[in-house]
Amino acid sequence: MPGIRPNVRAMAGYVPGEQPREDGVIKLNTNENPYPPSPKVFDAIRQTLTGDRLRKYPDPTGTQFRKTAARILDVDPEAILIGNGSDDILTILTRTFVPEGGCIVSLTPSYILYASLAEIQNARIEKVPFQSDWSLPHPWPVTDADLTFLANPNSPSGTVIDASAIQRLIEQCQGPVVLDEAYADFASCNGLAFARTGKAIVTRSLSKSYALAGIRFGFAVADPAIIREMLKVKDSYNCDVLSLAAATAALEDQNYFRTVRDRILATRTRMTAQLQELGFQVTPSQANFVWCQRSDRPVKPIYERLKEHRILVRYMNYPGYGDGLRISVGSDLEIDRLLAVLSDILT
Amino acid sequence: MPGIRPNVRAMAGYVPGEQPREDGVIKLNTNENPYPPSPKVFDAIRQTLTGDRLRKYPDPTGTQFRKTAARILDVDPEAILIGNGSDDILTILTRTFVPEGGCIVSLTPSYILYASLAEIQNARIEKVPFQSDWSLPHPWPVTDADLTFLANPNSPSGTVIDASAIQRLIEQCQGPVVLDEAYADFASCNGLAFARTGKAIVTRSLSKSYALAGIRFGFAVADPAIIREMLKVKDSYNCDVLSLAAATAALEDQNYFRTVRDRILATRTRMTAQLQELGFQVTPSQANFVWCQRSDRPVKPIYERLKEHRILVRYMNYPGYGDGLRISVGSDLEIDRLLAVLSDILT
Repeated sequence: MPGIRPNVRAMAGYVPGEQPREDGVIKLNTNENPYPPSPKVFDAIRQTLTGDRLRKYPDPTGTQFRKTAARILDVDPEAILIGNGSDDILTILTRTFVPEGGCIVSLTPSYILYASLAEIQNARIEKVPFQSDWSLPHPWPVTDADLTFLANPNSPSGTVIDASAIQRLIEQCQGPVVLDEAYADFASCNGLAFARTGKAIVTRSLSKSYALAGIRFGFAVADPAIIREMLKVKDSYNCDVLSLAAATAALEDQNYFRTVRDRILATRTRMTAQLQELGFQVTPSQANFVWCQRSDRPVKPIYERLKEHRILVRYMNYPGYGDGLRISVGSDLEIDRLLAVLSDILT
Repeated sequence: MPGIRPNVRAMAGYVPGEQPREDGVIKLNTNENPYPPSPKVFDAIRQTLTGDRLRKYPDPTGTQFRKTAARILDVDPEAILIGNGSDDILTILTRTFVPEGGCIVSLTPSYILYASLAEIQNARIEKVPFQSDWSLPHPWPVTDADLTFLANPNSPSGTVIDASAIQRLIEQCQGPVVLDEAYADFASCNGLAFARTGKAIVTRSLSKSYALAGIRFGFAVADPAIIREMLKVKDSYNCDVLSLAAATAALEDQNYFRTVRDRILATRTRMTAQLQELGFQVTPSQANFVWCQRSDRPVKPIYERLKEHRILVRYMNYPGYGDGLRISVGSDLEIDRLLAVLSDILT
C-alpha cells in the first residue's frame, strides 16, 4: 500500500483481550466489573434519549461531567479533560508531548498499549524493568523522556508505587509523568495530590470501577495550563451525549460505587487466599485482578483447560518475569466456579 | 508549560460552531438535522441498555454495523472502518499517512479542521483555492502531498465536484485522495465507486443525514488493505455499544432516512428561492445548508441581527471569496421564522 507511514506498516497493532460474542462464557480476562453500573446511569441515559439531544452536537468539553468530577475529586473543573475512554486520553497525551523521533518511557511488565502509542507516533519506546518486588529502580535510568507512563496500580501485577517513590520519580524526570490510574479506585492510595499541584498528570477510566467499559469514558486531571493544550489536540466532540450523561450519573452515585467496590475488594481477598491454597503464588493486588504464577508447573495448560471450561483469563508471559495468569475479580458466583474448575484441573 | 510540542503550543485550536445551552434558539449554524433520528434508533438504544452490555467492552471493529453498512452501500465489510464521528476518521487518516513535516492539501474555502489536523501532526498544510465557480484548478498544483482532502459536497459552498474531475484529481495526486462525504446523502452523486475500486478513501458521517450528531458516529470506506493499516492507528474501542447500536439501526431504516432527506431537499429548494428573492446570491447547494452572499450590503450585521432574534447562522469570511452566511436547512417552521426575520431586517 503506497503512502502508509513506515512506522505504521511495521506495527503489529495492539490486540485487545478476547471479547467472545456467545453467552455463557465467564469473562475474567479484561478486568470488566462483574456488576452492572448504577441504576442512576440507566435513568440518566433514558432521560437523554430525546430527538433533540441525539440530533444536536454534544457539549465539546463536558461541562456538567467536569463539575461533578471536580466536586467529588476535589479538583478544579478546568483541570479535567474528558476522553472517549482513557485510551483516548493516552493518545491525546502522546500527541501533545511527544514529537516524531521522541521518547516514551514505560515500565515493564505493564500495559503494552504504551508501546503501541509510541509506534503510531513514530517515537522510541524505552522500557524500564520493574525490580523483582515491583518497585521502581533508583536512580531512574531514563530522565530525558518526552513522556513517562506509570500504570498505578500496575497490570498485570496489581501492585502500587507509593507517594514517596512517585515523588522521587517526578524529581528525576524532565518531561511529564503520567500516572495511569485506571485501577486506582481499587487501591489504598492515588496520585491526585500530584495532579492538583501540577506535578503529574493523572488519567482515570470509568470502565472498571464504574462498570462502564461499554460506553467508553475516561478523563485526565492535570494543571489547567496543560489541559488547555490537550484540548487543542482532542477531537472537538470526542464524547457523546449518552456517555456524558452516563458518566456524570455514575460519578454522582458514590454510595453505589462504594458498595460495588467493597464487594469486589472482599472477593479479591477471598480469591487470593484460595488461589494460594491451590498452589499459586499470588501477588497482593490493589486492583480488580490478581496476578497468579506457579513455580511447580507450567501455567499455559491451565489457561487452556480453563478456556475449555468456558472460563477466560489472561495468559501473559514476560521474559525475565516468567509467565502467569491475570485473573479479573469476578462476581462471587464466577469466582466459585473458577476455583472449582481450577481445583479439578490441578488435582 | 515545559514539554508541550511547539506545534501544539503555537496552535489556536479548532473552534466548533456555537452550541448554546439555553432553549428557544433556532440553530442553523452547525448543519444538524432538524428532525429526530429514526424511532428504530431509540428502540435499539433501549434494547442495548442492559447491565451486561454497558459493563463489557464493545466489539472493537463494529462487526454488525459494518455488515449493515456494507449491504446498504454495496461494499465489502472489510472495506469499512468505524469512527467516533468522522472527525475521528480524519484524525486516523492523518496519522496513518502523514509524517511529521509531511504535507496535507486541502481546498479553500473548505472545512478548516484539515488545517488543524496538519498543525497537530506538525505537518504542512497547503491550501489550494477553488476556482471562482467552485471547480478544481487544472492542472492540479500540489501533486506530492501525503494526503489530499476534498470535502464533497464542500462547505461553505454546498457545491460538488463531479466524478470526471475527481478522476482527474486522483490521477494527478501521488498520495491518497480523501473524499470527505459528510454531506453526500444530500447530493445527487457520491464517490463510493472510487472507494470500491481502491482509488480514493471515502469518509461518511451519521451526524447530518441520520440526525445523530449527539452520538458521534462516522466511518471510512477504502481498500481493505488500507483499512487494515488504519485499524492499527485507531483506539481499540473507539465506538461505544450505544452508538454502535444507534448507528446500525439508523442505517437499517432506509425508508425513514429517505423521507427525512427528501423533506430537507424540498425545504432547501424553497429557502434558496426565497433567499434569492430577499436579495441574496445563493450558491445552488447539494448539502443541508446554503451559502448566501450579498453584493449590495455587508452581511455581518445581518448575522448579528439574526442572533439578537435568537437565530444562529454561521458568518464566514474568506479572503478572495468575500464573506457570507452559511445557513443550515432547518425545519419548515424554523425556515419560515428565519425568512420572516430576514425580511424585517432587510426592509
